[in-house]
Amino acid sequence: MADDATLNTLMPGQLLGRGVCRHLASHGFACVEELVPTRGLRVDVMALGPKDEVWIVECKSSRADFMSDGKWQGYLEWCDRYFWAVDAEFPTDLLPEGTGLIIADAYDAEILTMGPETRLAPARRKVMMRKFAFHAARRLQTLRDPGAALSL
Amino acid sequence: MADDATLNTLMPGQLLGRGVCRHLASHGFACVEELVPTRGLRVDVMALGPKDEVWIVECKSSRADFMSDGKWQGYLEWCDRYFWAVDAEFPTDLLPEGTGLIIADAYDAEILTMGPETRLAPARRKVMMRKFAFHAARRLQTLRDPGAALSL
Repeated sequence: MADDATLNTLMPGQLLGRGVCRHLASHGFACVEELVPTRGLRVDVMALGPKDEVWIVECKSSRADFMSDGKWQGYLEWCDRYFWAVDAEFPTDLLPEGTGLIIADAYDAEILTMGPETRLAPARRKVMMRKFAFHAARRLQTLRDPGAALSL
Repeated sequence: MADDATLNTLMPGQLLGRGVCRHLASHGFACVEELVPTRGLRVDVMALGPKDEVWIVECKSSRADFMSDGKWQGYLEWCDRYFWAVDAEFPTDLLPEGTGLIIADAYDAEILTMGPETRLAPARRKVMMRKFAFHAARRLQTLRDPGAALSL
């Protein structure tokens, strides 16, 4: 089955990301994975909503994965809402106050706590929408046309 | 070779589109194919430029392909510049005044005539950027995760 073949190529965090993207798509969001908002930062999932909402979701597959992340506060200024995505076994007491929580597996996800909203300034929202559009289109082109040799 | 395998799956107009997208990418544009700006219209290539330029390129593989297109004037209001992309054998005298011209093959393309500029209103540019972003991200997700079962 194609689905299982895909599963085997993904890391634990990417499996959570897959479920997150499926769930957010069902709410009318479009998602990309591994987007770079600015040099040195790479977000696991950026989701663009039907009202141009910008959400960032960081996927943590284990306590160690979470504890080693010293960059997450740097993501807050690039989104309207910030979430963690973890599996059902994750010790959620570890997670900081004032962030959203999504419980995910490779197949679906559920928003348990909505991340508090801090609206982006219009200029930054526009920047993020452009980054999202370019990221998605370039990745798509490399999959459709592997010979295109784009610089991503 | 992966490149040749891809070629065999594409229609003549899509081969031109591939070359167009490669060329525009080299100028810093991101491209998507088969985007629907509004019900009943489907553009062959929409390109988003480094300064948020919106270009539409219609790919015509033959005289008959061009003559049967009764919709092209409907595309003009959705872009800053409009182009035809044709191969080197195409009788370019057929093409209407006031449009751009790109000569393409499956591997590359060249802009022969720049389409005249009619700047989109800001609200419509925003709509097109959002459509582009959603189109690219949804197509990308269906390729990365064939089991996602999105409605496109």
